[in-house]
Amino acid sequence: MVDVEKLVQRTTEFVRTEVLPVDDEFDGDIEAAGGDDLRLRLQGLARERGLLSPHGPLDCGGLGLSMTERAGVFEAAGYSLFGPMALNVNAPDEGNVHLLDHVATVEQRSRFLAPLVSGRCRSAFAMTEPSPGAGSDPSLLMTRASKVSDGWLLNGRKSFITGADGAGFFIIMARTAGEPGDLGGATMFLAPGDTPGINVVRHIGTMDRSMIGGHCELQFTDVLVPDEFVLGGVDEGFRYAQVRLGPARMTHVMRWTGAAARAQETAIRYVAERRAFGSRLADQGMVQQMIADNEIDLAATRALLMKACAELDAGERASVSTSIAKTYAAEALDRVVDRAGQMCGGLGVSRDLPVAKIARELRPFRIYDGPSEVHRWSIAKRAVRNVTEVAR
Amino acid sequence: MVDVEKLVQRTTEFVRTEVLPVDDEFDGDIEAAGGDDLRLRLQGLARERGLLSPHGPLDCGGLGLSMTERAGVFEAAGYSLFGPMALNVNAPDEGNVHLLDHVATVEQRSRFLAPLVSGRCRSAFAMTEPSPGAGSDPSLLMTRASKVSDGWLLNGRKSFITGADGAGFFIIMARTAGEPGDLGGATMFLAPGDTPGINVVRHIGTMDRSMIGGHCELQFTDVLVPDEFVLGGVDEGFRYAQVRLGPARMTHVMRWTGAAARAQETAIRYVAERRAFGSRLADQGMVQQMIADNEIDLAATRALLMKACAELDAGERASVSTSIAKTYAAEALDRVVDRAGQMCGGLGVSRDLPVAKIARELRPFRIYDGPSEVHRWSIAKRAVRNVTEVAR
Amino acid sequence: MVDVEKLVQRTTEFVRTEVLPVDDEFDGDIEAAGGDDLRLRLQGLARERGLLSPHGPLDCGGLGLSMTERAGVFEAAGYSLFGPMALNVNAPDEGNVHLLDHVATVEQRSRFLAPLVSGRCRSAFAMTEPSPGAGSDPSLLMTRASKVSDGWLLNGRKSFITGADGAGFFIIMARTAGEPGDLGGATMFLAPGDTPGINVVRHIGTMDRSMIGGHCELQFTDVLVPDEFVLGGVDEGFRYAQVRLGPARMTHVMRWTGAAARAQETAIRYVAERRAFGSRLADQGMVQQMIADNEIDLAATRALLMKACAELDAGERASVSTSIAKTYAAEALDRVVDRAGQMCGGLGVSRDLPVAKIARELRPFRIYDGPSEVHRWSIAKRAVRNVTEVAR
Amino acid sequence: MVDVEKLVQRTTEFVRTEVLPVDDEFDGDIEAAGGDDLRLRLQGLARERGLLSPHGPLDCGGLGLSMTERAGVFEAAGYSLFGPMALNVNAPDEGNVHLLDHVATVEQRSRFLAPLVSGRCRSAFAMTEPSPGAGSDPSLLMTRASKVSDGWLLNGRKSFITGADGAGFFIIMARTAGEPGDLGGATMFLAPGDTPGINVVRHIGTMDRSMIGGHCELQFTDVLVPDEFVLGGVDEGFRYAQVRLGPARMTHVMRWTGAAARAQETAIRYVAERRAFGSRLADQGMVQQMIADNEIDLAATRALLMKACAELDAGERASVSTSIAKTYAAEALDRVVDRAGQMCGGLGVSRDLPVAKIARELRPFRIYDGPSEVHRWSIAKRAVRNVTEVAR
Repeated sequence: MVDVEKLVQRTTEFVRTEVLPVDDEFDGDIEAAGGDDLRLRLQGLARERGLLSPHGPLDCGGLGLSMTERAGVFEAAGYSLFGPMALNVNAPDEGNVHLLDHVATVEQRSRFLAPLVSGRCRSAFAMTEPSPGAGSDPSLLMTRASKVSDGWLLNGRKSFITGADGAGFFIIMARTAGEPGDLGGATMFLAPGDTPGINVVRHIGTMDRSMIGGHCELQFTDVLVPDEFVLGGVDEGFRYAQVRLGPARMTHVMRWTGAAARAQETAIRYVAERRAFGSRLADQGMVQQMIADNEIDLAATRALLMKACAELDAGERASVSTSIAKTYAAEALDRVVDRAGQMCGGLGVSRDLPVAKIARELRPFRIYDGPSEVHRWSIAKRAVRNVTEVAR
Repeated sequence: MVDVEKLVQRTTEFVRTEVLPVDDEFDGDIEAAGGDDLRLRLQGLARERGLLSPHGPLDCGGLGLSMTERAGVFEAAGYSLFGPMALNVNAPDEGNVHLLDHVATVEQRSRFLAPLVSGRCRSAFAMTEPSPGAGSDPSLLMTRASKVSDGWLLNGRKSFITGADGAGFFIIMARTAGEPGDLGGATMFLAPGDTPGINVVRHIGTMDRSMIGGHCELQFTDVLVPDEFVLGGVDEGFRYAQVRLGPARMTHVMRWTGAAARAQETAIRYVAERRAFGSRLADQGMVQQMIADNEIDLAATRALLMKACAELDAGERASVSTSIAKTYAAEALDRVVDRAGQMCGGLGVSRDLPVAKIARELRPFRIYDGPSEVHRWSIAKRAVRNVTEVAR
Repeated sequence: MVDVEKLVQRTTEFVRTEVLPVDDEFDGDIEAAGGDDLRLRLQGLARERGLLSPHGPLDCGGLGLSMTERAGVFEAAGYSLFGPMALNVNAPDEGNVHLLDHVATVEQRSRFLAPLVSGRCRSAFAMTEPSPGAGSDPSLLMTRASKVSDGWLLNGRKSFITGADGAGFFIIMARTAGEPGDLGGATMFLAPGDTPGINVVRHIGTMDRSMIGGHCELQFTDVLVPDEFVLGGVDEGFRYAQVRLGPARMTHVMRWTGAAARAQETAIRYVAERRAFGSRLADQGMVQQMIADNEIDLAATRALLMKACAELDAGERASVSTSIAKTYAAEALDRVVDRAGQMCGGLGVSRDLPVAKIARELRPFRIYDGPSEVHRWSIAKRAVRNVTEVAR
Repeated sequence: MVDVEKLVQRTTEFVRTEVLPVDDEFDGDIEAAGGDDLRLRLQGLARERGLLSPHGPLDCGGLGLSMTERAGVFEAAGYSLFGPMALNVNAPDEGNVHLLDHVATVEQRSRFLAPLVSGRCRSAFAMTEPSPGAGSDPSLLMTRASKVSDGWLLNGRKSFITGADGAGFFIIMARTAGEPGDLGGATMFLAPGDTPGINVVRHIGTMDRSMIGGHCELQFTDVLVPDEFVLGGVDEGFRYAQVRLGPARMTHVMRWTGAAARAQETAIRYVAERRAFGSRLADQGMVQQMIADNEIDLAATRALLMKACAELDAGERASVSTSIAKTYAAEALDRVVDRAGQMCGGLGVSRDLPVAKIARELRPFRIYDGPSEVHRWSIAKRAVRNVTEVAR
């Protein structure tokens, strides 16, 4: 039985001592900071301290934390942009661990899940496609998997695939039935990174720079996947995507809450020191309003997160509560970091303080993992259904 | 042991069947609807059903619910503007029950608390004063209590005293030491409503109309309070006010959440029926955005509320978490009702639907019980202290 | 040639001296304050001072102000809720004057326009219908006009018809061709208020109370309108509605800006007097932020208004710029009054100050005259068209 | 007499043809794009077309545009991040031209102003200092100028000095009397860039990358400035800073409006092409709301800008209206670009579209040139003064 409170403390200490200095030296740019070499070094340190993969299943060497237990640990990791990587709890690996833990066969478990949990490799989740393919609307899936004698032949293009460059293996969503626009007919495939026909076309030049392996465009040309690497049932890919979705949203929220909390602390320290117009900035009303609004936004984020995690731990699908928590968090944490930047004045938009880089890394979260608009659409539809069905 | 879930259900049913029709017939105007006569009738019905005073201590005939348990019940009550009164869980009585339960002597308990819990009388809490007296800044307290042989003589003026007209007794905050501006020297006194020298000067014409007994201006002229009616220790009034404050804030949030939820349901029913520009309003994006934002605001309100209630139930003072929950809720619920009104078009600002009256009743909550600005100020100060003390 | 600056000054003085005291005594409730008797008395005073109908055409006894010139005068009138009525520049009369001035025949001009400008009667504009008829989407128009030998027979139901009770005449929009959903086929008719078959079914109980004649539901039963009372061409009603629309939106903005400016001044006076926590409220940062945000909202409202008025005075249709100014103003002025209420604390939600009543009167403006959502929809469509057409 | 409308057209064409391709190729990074070499090349092209320095005084070879006339031209320039540099209307040069035009002696005019207008050199304005020196609160000025026989000896440190690296000359604010905290005693000095003792300590690593010469930290060590290079009167520096301030704020607004307009156009083109959930994004309500809000924000920015420019052109100080326009614009344009990014989904946070880089460049504008909080503070103080003085 893990003492979660102590684990949070030890994670906090580790992140601030070993990870934060590298993060700040390289302004959160993972490639400049050393890429996979840095990852291996930091994960080695985490392993020594018993901090690696706290979410991983016990049989693979993880600590087996529930969603509720993860919250504090992942937030502590997120305090540094490189912290989640150092603890091996970063996207997309963390969500892939969750997915494989629920769906993988025994062979897949040992072949793919175990090395992922132990940090021996990274992974990528290849679902999103360039327009007019699958994006916010996954039914538009265009990548094809055609049955051949002993497996499947995959062809198609993917975009915004996080961690693709250097991934040890891919989970690929491809259409095994139906046409773009159909809500079924997708299947998940496992493919080692060196499978012939998988090509990283380019790194998309996104504003964030802390994600190892980048956000890539991929081309799949006659990628042969043997039958035993089909993940779960054929044509059931969208259903499994749901298994991964809710928890993955919530762990994003955990990590980004840590980053935003760092921005808030940085700003508070700044305004507690700096003076203008005869008093400390921290004693001026407009600054106090920003500090308080940040506290409120952080508290509401955490409260919504814990509500959703409790539902997930209770075995519920929690699609509404994770949508609400994700949407609220992505917007609220952005506001937190923006106000923190404003409080720090010129330094808030410079490398002298960590706030500007956190802003840069955080912004895409309102788009990645479902833009706020798509979440709102589904929240609204469910609310209308609930009320009108009750009304009948 | 109370089955809270069932209690919520039964409360919901009672409120919709017995209370809502009166509320809607009289547009939430308690005086027009019958005032104390209505109260006695509805409380009688609630008593028959075992729903009265769910928060009251068991020895006084209440159900003894914890803060966490109250949340759902009070929200169900708040679905009608008259619901909290019908269940005897309305401000200020509900907070006074809490205060007396913690501070009253055995005699005070039987003399004041028991009849309050049973609904035999109402009460008022006389703290706020007209400018330049005690308001957001309680240290400005001007009402004086002077020691006389067998008690205290109270003189002063109070304002915005909810429920004062017709109150069975008052809890009066008066200065027993120090000068306006001093942070100590206040004492709480219990005074039956018919004590000579207590005069209701006027009802303040506030926009809300659902609170029985109004919001009144009072004059105390040589009000004699015997020593045994001092509530708690002399000069310790501000400390006891804190005991009342946190929980009272939270039960406000519970009740108003119910009212806002009704506005949201009303709006959803409206947009699910009405069509314009070729489709149901409920299927149009800008309307869906309002629906979703309302769901998010309601969810975050409830999540922050439950967090604060858990702290209170654990015996913590919870001053920050109740400040955060109160501030967030007062603003969020206002947004919810405002969006609901917007969704309902012209009917949303009319008596034809209940949304406009809920808006009118809810608005003052951003001011009553500490305006948002004062809460933000204290939240910010605490946040700065936390960070800078850790930093040392 | 009118000296507009002086006219503004004299209007300001008149409104504050003669109109404001009545407004405040009766909390802006026009029926309580005397209804048409009050109107006649105040308009008499305005006439004596040469202030009546500044927008009316010169040949009817008005001052013939352009849109740009009206802005300051109407804002000065709007400082009191009864000011626009006192100057005869209130909705819907003011817009009807504009419409008749552009479309009426010589006979219609003397029969309907002249008495309206001189204040001898009031008028109403009967377009909106209860669901599923014409509302935000005017094409849903259901009221029918059937041709008979010497005129038209009108049948249908109208809703939210401002000023209907006691109106000297109506301008009625009815369908002369096509079916609900068609974008053409509407015609405008003039009908004296005592025409048989026009019935005021009820006053809708809206939250605002300052509009003389209320917001009414009407039933038209075989209302006979002679051919010479057709306003403009048959089947061209929607086109004429556009003529009225833009300017009517802008004069609403002018009047409400005056009301919001009064709320802001009231709040500033309050915070400049009141002290808490050791300083004037006016010197505390969060209050200063509200004051400044109000100044910004008022300035932007006026700037957008003047831009649209300049276009209208130049003979442009100005449909985008009036939509933008209306939408911005309705939301911004609401914010202004809301912040003003917050600054005034408990008094801000009471009759002791005029802020709460202004809030109550102003709120519906985000819905009346096209809800913000409909304006946004049309602004967006135009923006997309502009960009994509340029792109070709 | 310049035909401003044509000038806007020709500027637009020039910027899109010659400047935009370089801007986009190098993601708005001026150093990567060639720095001063690029500047000289683009300014050469602008000169050939008669587009250079439209704001410059006629006797120095500029086009002598008024503030009102500049608006459209500068906005057209701002459409590319390098456009203002190409036209020689960038900060800080543009503001320095304005200042010198008003204050410089004949000799200073020919020695400093003429080459600046012609593009032969760049300049910098050295006022801001690192904490605890002059920042939002200029009275904290610490840099000292001590009188020596034939001039002044300057010592001190400056920070966030835009364009300092490579500047042909500096305008330096230094204290000639009083102590930090005093509201007087500052003087402006002109110093060629190669004056001994001026050292660029470092480029501050800000998030924006389009400003030539960077934002630098400077050290002044015994910098000797002859008497004839004192700009204006001794001890009158703060007064002259006001001369520069208002117009400089407004030209910032003009340029950034152009950049934000480009983001909006980019987003509209994107949503007009892309489909999801069965329809064009441009036809979905939540997207339409973002488009419309952007149009409203742009329109209000321009309207407030033109109001302030008209005041400036009329010779007024316009300190309130420029504060309002600057504050509104900085926040509104940020919202515009943020919504544009959201509309573009993943591409909106990538280099594939220009929106992310515009966001990065624009963010600091809420801080540079006076943070919003300081502007609000001064707007509020003025509003209180206006109301309370009128009240007396």
